[in-house]
Order: sequence, then structure tokens, then C-alpha cells
Amino acid sequence: MIIVMHPEATSEEVAQIVERLQDLGADIHITSDGGRTVVSGTTETRLADEAPWASLPGVERVVPVLRGGRRVSRHFKPDDTVVDVMDVTIGGGSLTVVAGPCAIESREQMMGTARLVAAAGAAMIRGDAFKPRTSPYAFQGLGKAGLEILAEVREETGLPVVAEVLDPRDVDLVASYADVVRIGTRNMSNQALLREVGRQPKPVMLKRGRASTIEEWIDAAEYIHNEGNARIVLVERGIRGFDSSTRNTLDVSAVPLVKLATHLPVMVDPSHAAGRRDIVASLALAAVAAGADGVMIDVHPRPSEAMVDGPQAMLPKEFETLMRDLQAVASVLRPDPSG
Amino acid sequence: MIIVMHPEATSEEVAQIVERLQDLGADIHITSDGGRTVVSGTTETRLADEAPWASLPGVERVVPVLRGGRRVSRHFKPDDTVVDVMDVTIGGGSLTVVAGPCAIESREQMMGTARLVAAAGAAMIRGDAFKPRTSPYAFQGLGKAGLEILAEVREETGLPVVAEVLDPRDVDLVASYADVVRIGTRNMSNQALLREVGRQPKPVMLKRGRASTIEEWIDAAEYIHNEGNARIVLVERGIRGFDSSTRNTLDVSAVPLVKLATHLPVMVDPSHAAGRRDIVASLALAAVAAGADGVMIDVHPRPSEAMVDGPQAMLPKEFETLMRDLQAVASVLRPDPSG
Amino acid sequence: MIIVMHPEATSEEVAQIVERLQDLGADIHITSDGGRTVVSGTTETRLADEAPWASLPGVERVVPVLRGGRRVSRHFKPDDTVVDVMDVTIGGGSLTVVAGPCAIESREQMMGTARLVAAAGAAMIRGDAFKPRTSPYAFQGLGKAGLEILAEVREETGLPVVAEVLDPRDVDLVASYADVVRIGTRNMSNQALLREVGRQPKPVMLKRGRASTIEEWIDAAEYIHNEGNARIVLVERGIRGFDSSTRNTLDVSAVPLVKLATHLPVMVDPSHAAGRRDIVASLALAAVAAGADGVMIDVHPRPSEAMVDGPQAMLPKEFETLMRDLQAVASVLRPDPSG
Amino acid sequence: MIIVMHPEATSEEVAQIVERLQDLGADIHITSDGGRTVVSGTTETRLADEAPWASLPGVERVVPVLRGGRRVSRHFKPDDTVVDVMDVTIGGGSLTVVAGPCAIESREQMMGTARLVAAAGAAMIRGDAFKPRTSPYAFQGLGKAGLEILAEVREETGLPVVAEVLDPRDVDLVASYADVVRIGTRNMSNQALLREVGRQPKPVMLKRGRASTIEEWIDAAEYIHNEGNARIVLVERGIRGFDSSTRNTLDVSAVPLVKLATHLPVMVDPSHAAGRRDIVASLALAAVAAGADGVMIDVHPRPSEAMVDGPQAMLPKEFETLMRDLQAVASVLRPDPSG
Repeated sequence: MIIVMHPEATSEEVAQIVERLQDLGADIHITSDGGRTVVSGTTETRLADEAPWASLPGVERVVPVLRGGRRVSRHFKPDDTVVDVMDVTIGGGSLTVVAGPCAIESREQMMGTARLVAAAGAAMIRGDAFKPRTSPYAFQGLGKAGLEILAEVREETGLPVVAEVLDPRDVDLVASYADVVRIGTRNMSNQALLREVGRQPKPVMLKRGRASTIEEWIDAAEYIHNEGNARIVLVERGIRGFDSSTRNTLDVSAVPLVKLATHLPVMVDPSHAAGRRDIVASLALAAVAAGADGVMIDVHPRPSEAMVDGPQAMLPKEFETLMRDLQAVASVLRPDPSG
Repeated sequence: MIIVMHPEATSEEVAQIVERLQDLGADIHITSDGGRTVVSGTTETRLADEAPWASLPGVERVVPVLRGGRRVSRHFKPDDTVVDVMDVTIGGGSLTVVAGPCAIESREQMMGTARLVAAAGAAMIRGDAFKPRTSPYAFQGLGKAGLEILAEVREETGLPVVAEVLDPRDVDLVASYADVVRIGTRNMSNQALLREVGRQPKPVMLKRGRASTIEEWIDAAEYIHNEGNARIVLVERGIRGFDSSTRNTLDVSAVPLVKLATHLPVMVDPSHAAGRRDIVASLALAAVAAGADGVMIDVHPRPSEAMVDGPQAMLPKEFETLMRDLQAVASVLRPDPSG
Repeated sequence: MIIVMHPEATSEEVAQIVERLQDLGADIHITSDGGRTVVSGTTETRLADEAPWASLPGVERVVPVLRGGRRVSRHFKPDDTVVDVMDVTIGGGSLTVVAGPCAIESREQMMGTARLVAAAGAAMIRGDAFKPRTSPYAFQGLGKAGLEILAEVREETGLPVVAEVLDPRDVDLVASYADVVRIGTRNMSNQALLREVGRQPKPVMLKRGRASTIEEWIDAAEYIHNEGNARIVLVERGIRGFDSSTRNTLDVSAVPLVKLATHLPVMVDPSHAAGRRDIVASLALAAVAAGADGVMIDVHPRPSEAMVDGPQAMLPKEFETLMRDLQAVASVLRPDPSG
Repeated sequence: MIIVMHPEATSEEVAQIVERLQDLGADIHITSDGGRTVVSGTTETRLADEAPWASLPGVERVVPVLRGGRRVSRHFKPDDTVVDVMDVTIGGGSLTVVAGPCAIESREQMMGTARLVAAAGAAMIRGDAFKPRTSPYAFQGLGKAGLEILAEVREETGLPVVAEVLDPRDVDLVASYADVVRIGTRNMSNQALLREVGRQPKPVMLKRGRASTIEEWIDAAEYIHNEGNARIVLVERGIRGFDSSTRNTLDVSAVPLVKLATHLPVMVDPSHAAGRRDIVASLALAAVAAGADGVMIDVHPRPSEAMVDGPQAMLPKEFETLMRDLQAVASVLRPDPSG
């Protein structure tokens, strides 16, 4: 950690910094630069950064050097984590496509869509029983009845199923039906929920908060890992932007940045980023070309009748074409995209 | 609701829209503009907006007209809501100042700070027992022991106390100690938590999410009101911005905008917006001049030893000066700021 | 244009709207919705939208319907514009790679880099003689001497060269040396400069402003087209974001959005978006997979000695690998990427 | 300057850094922290920061220490700059209100508005002859004829007049009529224009770019100062945000931040920030309470007929009330607001 003092800092103020660093057992070096005294203290733990250095008298700026003392960081574990879900592999060079409707509306709708996307080559099925809606008067999902439909979908298709969980008290329920539990963008910083999914054994897909930095997102993953569950997949789904042309701004840079900083797989949800069907395929292709381990696509047989997010759902035919293009891109950029 | 069709929309597509509107019992008018057909459907409820109009074939854009069928809207209740907490009044022309440390660290620190801010004229004391920290390795608060300290503070000072709640399972616990429960920025969209605080009787301070629009924030308040608790205070605390000069960008426009759209009181937390002590007073004064019903200020007797957010805490002496300036501004702009 | 009146608007206020629309020769339809009167006026020109409808008494909201009465819109010209520069084609299915150093520093540096990128398959060479720097004390470019070096590069390599222009008084000078003139992100809204490049015959690359919406960017292109120059290429280069992990946030959605809205070619500059070398290749691949007509890449033989933007420049070897990957992606997604 | 090396940096890479710093005559100190080598080099000039440290092999991060070697910084000149314009004073404790219509539309409109705002206590009159419009088809201003009207306004009211300049070739023309020349938000980074206004003697109002950091804005002011003109007033006018409730997000923190970092006066334009009349007064009061040296208000006698930005213009009566409230706030917060 490096502490840059104000130009007018007194020697007593510098001495106070030095003393506190010594109390923590740090190695200390003092230099000066541009009229400022610069103190650097070396410690072995990250906890030192938690002390209130920035508010000590005479301090101008604090520069943390030792970043990423985190279990999810690539520094901690250099090799890629590969998450296995039944027969499906996420990470390690595979291209994993999750598809399905945004919300489970009925047994017929869910089962029909699942069959169509499975036939087109999806590896997993999505469909939510609990929906976080901006307005309390919007459709909130079928709840437990929806989870039962999801379990039938797995039996019928043989594919693993993914579902969102909103409440720490529902984690066990959702995890008892779904093969992967998902934390949505609104709950990325809901630490009670993060801890709860960290205490159960199913893999977790963690969506990025709409206004979260890459670092904050990785810290949220650390909350899960810290409780003992290391089977985490990060999912970029667009960040808040100023242009209403899209619902969110897909941050495709997140893909290589997460790969550099962590050992976790990273997927992209272009449907929720775009919020409009006509650019979903372009964004999905961009994600895979940028190195994403997979994509998550809203598909609905009749988007005009979808109860949630119809405007962004692809038609099954469009999804088939997209699957072929995704595989073509993966095949020219990766040694073995079949997983 | 107004539906603007694509220039190339077929008459069948227009007919389909009309038919669905008729099924919903809407009055329908059809016009054309700039080569486009424009269908407007009048319905009495907001639910019509939930149907997937935007994804019906041939539709270019959907313009909702009937906004704000919400209980928290000023349209629903034209008069200002005034929230009473023991002898303290929030809203209706009062200026209410909440002050104290960000986190409860010890009995001595909390009690000492409470006495100082009470003497300077604060009307309520803040101090959190549960802290939502970005990193799982940072100090997370004293928990129940902190709440007990808070109850002592109320007994000693006679002032109501405010504390944050993070987990729906802790709502009853926090509400049994605190006089006001607070939802933090990270949990503004945590609907399980919103519902739970809506089901208990203590007033709720609802901070704005860091990347939430005014409309989304008001929708979050509606989640609380919808469960039966109408004693809600909205708290602006800065939004995510691109300039790292401040921790967040204080959106002072939120004050008059909330007053126009809702009947709820609105306060401002300039400490968490700024993240730096040297501009907190300026921002607090700006908030009150803009019409805020109160401010919430971090004060710490020794910010350099604060375990959380020390750099933004004011010293007790600075807080005294600020109190005088706030009262001076309120006295020239409001009929009766004494509350 | 649709005008939604306030619920309390008087019939006189509605009459005033109607009268003004009649004065403009509009066809008028009046409906009501959710207690509001809704007036829609049909006119043939976009100019009607410029009148102060939103501030007329009783008006709640104005919804422009007729968008894009612009020469650059796809509605105006459905077929893709293809911009030819010497033997190089931009648009119409080609993949065009522009590469070179950010700034021209010397004859040796520029010529050396040009030869390397030409050998690796770049179709055009970039290198700026005028640099817009945030600080007045940073290197501002070689000026006319730099342009002369650029002309030598064209002679030596046979490839067209691209250079930025900053000042309307320099447009003729830059255009007399460069084959394509470029407007940078800082000047996207500099309308004096837009008009000036619109009055000369060389093709123009128009970078997106760092905080511009897609619509504002297209309007800037319209300023150029409106002066008579239709040879315009739009270049996405990242928008301002809240995460300092990258210099800007590459908005890959801009690629399909521009293609839907206009007939102009669109390129991507991943180097200035990222501001860091280690993710440039991923972003370039994403851009081409999303449908970009080309990319613009900073390459420098010795980035550590670059006077401007060294951290984002690729090494020539890295660029060679990228060229192969870009062509592989284009080959599986496009009918004829050879142009 | 502090250079943090990668954990895997070789000793040769460290040696290369040291050697280059020595070539620049820097004092050098080497420490290590968390497994990383940290090199700090002390130099007397800011130019050292321009070298490509971040891209030298083995470098992880570069931390500039010596900030603000700028003529506009408070470090360079500790006392407030006071800008005098005829009999009007900006800065140094005064409250200066500039008011008038956004655009000059006719002699009658301009003269009538000027008389009204002068009577209400405005110290300067605004009114633009050149307007930067997003669309090339919108009203672009009266040009020279508008400037002549502006000169008449000065003669009639005895008050100084402010006008925007858009093109470096028009600077002399605008400065020959106006008492203050203004650079608008779209041109904050138009360095050709900044330099040109720096070479003429009239004071300059420099609006903040819509997506500019405080530091970038100050750097733009430095471009002007660097040409010899030190009479600069910074004007905050809202930054780009994600919430369409307002046209821009007023960043009231900019007021104290600019005062801390520079010796220049700072004003606020709440009209262009809000884009809607109903919150302009609240924002103006907030600005003055936060310490702004003045505000700039759009006033139009008949906003519904304004050719530009009518929805945000106050009525003369509203402006009178605002003037009284602004003076009341200034009187309780400042020693001598009469200037």
C-alpha cells in the first residue's frame, strides 16, 4: 500500500502513519516526490487496506497495491475453472448455449419451447418461476408450480435447467428443482442471498449488477466462494447506459476482463442487454468471438404472447440459425468447442 | 396507450392489434401520421401496459399514456405525507437532520457521537449494526450487539434511531430495536426485502439504487406501500457516474422530481454521495435549498479511526457549523422549518 | 407527431394546439386515453417537430413519430452505401482493416509501421499529424510535416492513408494529403468542422462522441451529408462509462443499430475503446462478428516508446495473428468478405 | 510518479525503468510491496508523466503524484480570481445572475426579455446568435444580425451581454459585439476554438462538456489560460445521465470541487441541466447554496413561442421570485453577496 501525503503534511502526520504501519507489522519505505512525502507499507494481508488510511491527517491519496487476494482470482488459481452440470460443461473451451423463455407461463409453453431449443442444439434450458419485476403489479411468476414444470422439462429433454432465486428463504426450494441457480442483476449486491447460494451445492450463475464495475462483480462472486461453493459462472447482461436505443449497454469487454482477472467461466445474456430481438444474434456472435464460454438466449415460440420480455425473445427459427453461426465462429477460433 | 406501427405494417397486423385491444374492452382510435398507422387504445387499468404490445408483428413503438397508477403518486394523494417518528416530523415543511457514524463500532464510539450530534441539533441518530460491504473480508457490523447499543442511545438521548436492514429474515429483529428501518442502495431492487419491511409498522427510509431512475425508485416504494406500510421516506444518496472525483454523483434534481411525482418526504445523504468530507457541507446546503425535507450526515469524532467510510465523516465541530447554516437556509426559504 | 395533453388541460388549450397544427397544414386526429386528450398531427416534413409543442400550455408530452427524415437513413436509401478509397472498399460485405500508429512521430516510425501492417494485410494506414490532447502540455502532433510523411507512406505502400482533422481551417490541408479525413470523438458535435468536411470530396470517417446517442451520431453524419458529401463511414470507439477497467466502454450494439438505421458503413476502433492492449484482439473479433465493415487498430513497433497511447497499441506480431482470426470469422459469417 | 511492477517483472525490466528515469534526471527510490517492486521517480515537471511508462515491459500500473501543474489550479494561485465585466463582478463572494432567452429570435423578443430580466435584477443578459443544434435542419440562429441586436440590448440596459461562439473563424466577430464569449458544452474539447478565445481579451465562460470529468474541464480551461487569457468562468450545466426525467444530470458537486481545485469562478446553468421549467428554481437555489458564484437562467416572455428550448425557459414572473430567493440564500451564507 502506498500513501501519498499532502504537500503541507507535517512531520508529525507522517510519523503517525509510520507508527500505525509499524503496529501492523509492515515493512516501511519513505520517499518523496514532487514535494510530497510518499510512504509505502508492505503487508502480507489485504486487511491492511481496510484501515482508514485515507482519512488520517495529512494524507492526500492511498494507492492499494496488493489487489485480488481473492479465491476467485486467477492469481489464486491460474487454471480455468470448469463447471460441470449433469453432462454439460461450462468453461475450458466449450461453447454452452442456454435457451428458453424468460418466464415459465404454463406447462405447454415451457415444454414446447424446451423441445424446440433442445432440438436446435441448446445445452441447457432456462425458465424462471420467480420474476423480479420493477412494478409490484406486474406478473411475478408461477412460484413452486413453475419449478415443478421445470423438473418435468429436465425429465423430458434430459437437459439441465436453470432458474433464478430472489429470496434467501427460497434458495433450498429452487435448488431442489433446478440444476443451476441464478442470481439476477437486481440482486448482485444482495449479500444475504449471495451467502445463501454459497452454502448449497448447486452451481450458481451470477449476473452482473446493472451498474457494477468488474471488480464489484468479482467481489460478489467471492461472497459465494467464501461460503464454500466454487462452482460459479459469471454472466454479463448489459450495464446501465444513457442511450435508450437498447435496454442496457452490452459490455463485451467484460468477457476478456473477467478471463484475465479470474479463473471462472463467463457467459453473456444478449437478450436482456438488447431488450430487442433484432440485434440479439449480432450480440451473441460478438460475445462468442470475444471469448465467452457461452450465451443465454430468450426464445419464445410466440413472443407476442409472452408475459415477460416478449420484445427481446427470438423465434425458434431465428435461434436455429444463430446456433449454426455461433458454432461456426467457435470452430474457427477455438481448438475444441464441442466441449 | 398509443401504438405506432411500422411504415410497412400490413393491414392484418393492424387488425390483430385492434382485435386484442377489443378483447381487453378498450376504446380504440386509429389515425395515421407520416406514413405510419397509429392505434390508440384507452383502458382503465395499468395492466394493459403489461401485455406484449411491443412485440406484436408490425409494431414500431408503444407509448404508455396512463402513468403512475400508484399509491405513492401525488396523483393518488395530492397532499404531502408527513412521517412522524416519536416526537420527530419528516415532511410537511420541517427540516430533519439525521446524524451519526456510518457503522456502530463500540458502545463508547456510538454513545459519544450520539451525544455530540444531539447537542448540535440533530433530530435522529444513525448507526448501522449490519453493513453491506463490497468485499466479504471487510467489517460487516456488530449485528444484534450493535442494535442493543442503538437502543441505549435512544434511551440516553431521547432521540429516535435509524438502522439498515439487509436480510428479510432480520426485518423483525431490526424493527424491534430501531425506530426507522432503512433499505440501502444495494437493496433498492431486493423485492423480498421491500415486501418484508412493508409488512411491519415502523417507518422505512428507502435509499435510491445507485443506477435507478426516479421512476424505478418510486416503483420500489410502491412495493412497500402495497404491503400496507405507507410511512416511507425516500433518500437520494448519489448515482453512479463517470467521474471518480466523488464516490457517487449527487442527483439534486431528484428532490424536486420526487416532490412533483409523489406525496412522500424526500431526504438526501450527501456523505455517501460525496465519499469525501470536504464537500459534504456544500451538498447538504444544496439539498435543503432544493427543497429536501432533511439530510442524513455521517459524523465521527475521530474519522481516522472509523472502521467504515471514515473519509466522508464530518467532525463534530464541522457538523455544528453545518447545522447553523442549514437552519439559516431553511429559515429564509420555508414558512416554518422548525417542524 | 403525437401530443399528449395534461389531464387538466382545458379545451382552449387543446384548441390552440389544433389551430397551430392547422396553420402548418397538418392532418389532425383527436382521441382520448386514460383521461387525457391526445392530438396527433400529420405533416410531411420534419420541421414541424421543431416548433415548441412541448411548452404550449396544457401539453404533457410530445411524441415525434416521423423519425429519420434524414438523407443518411436507410428509409431514405435502402441499399448499403459502399465507400471506395483508391482500390479499397468499405461496406457491402468487405472486411476493411485500417492500422498504424496513433500519432506520426517520425518518418522512420511511420514508414516502418506502415510496411509491417501492410505486410500483415491491412488495407489502409492510419497515423495522425494533429492530435487532440486533453492537456495543452502534451504532444500535439507534427502538423504539416506529419502529413508529408503520410503522403510518402501512400507512395511506398500503395495503400490509402487516413488522418484526423481538428480545425475547420485545416480541412483543405489535411484533405490534400490524406485519402480519408477523420473527425475524432471530441469533435463529433463540432458543427463548423462537420460542415467543412462536408464541402470537400474526400471520404470522411466520423467517430462517435464519447457520450453521444446513436441518434445524435447519425444527426452529426447528416450535417456532413447535407453539405454534399455522402461518402461517410461511422466509427464506434467506445462511450463513457463508470468502470475504469477500460478507457471507454465499447458499445458493440452500435454496429447492428447503425446498420438498421442508416445505409452507411460502420467500423469499430477497439484500441481507443479499450485503452489497453490485452483485450484489443477480443474486441476486434467481437466487432466483426457483430457485423462491422471493418476495424481500426493501433499498432506500434515499440509501444513503450510511443508518444501517444502506447499502452493500447498492438505489436506487429500480435496484429498478424489478429488479421488471421478476423478473416476466419468474416469467412464463416459473410458470403464474400474479400471485398 | 510511482510505477508498480507486475509480480513477474524481471530485474531487467526494473532496470530499464530505472535507467529511463535516470535519463530524465529523476531521483529514484525502489521499494517492494505485496510481492511487487515499486519504483518511484521524482521529477520537477509534469512532462515526465507524458512518457509511456504504462507500456514499458513489466509495468502493472503508473500512479502520477504531481497533479495540477496548471496555471488555473489553486496550487498555482491560491487566491480567488475575480472576473470584472464592465461594472459586474463574477467571483469573490458576489452572486451574479445572467438571464435572457436561449436564442435571439428578433429585436422585439430580445429587447423585451432583456428589459424584464434587468428590472428583476439580472446583472448580465444572455442571448445567442449562433446555436449548435443536434439536427442540421433546426433553427441555427440569426448570426451577425443577432449580434447587432445584442449590442443594442447593452446600450439600452447598460448591462453586459454574453454570447456563444461556435467556430474559431467567428471568435473576433462575436468578441467585437459581446462582453463575454461563451464556449458551449459541445465544444468544450474543441481545442482550436479554445485556443482562439484564449488569444482575445474578452472574458470567457467555459461550459462543461456533457461527459467530461472535472479534471478534463479544468484542462480545457488551461488551454485558454495558456494562450494568455486568464479571465475564465467555468459553467456547470449538467452531465449525461441514464434518467430521462431531466435533459441532463446537474452535478452540483462540481461547484465545491472546482473551487477546491482552481482559483476560477464557477457558475451553474440549471435551465439546460433540467430541460424543464418546473425544477429550474430548485436547482438554481441548490447551486447558490453549494457556493456557486452565479447562475445563468433561460427566461422567455412566451416560452410556448420560443424557437429553441422553450420548455426550460422561466416566465418573467417566476424569475422575479427566484431572484428574491437567490438573494435570500446568498445573504445568509455569504459575508457580502452584493458584490
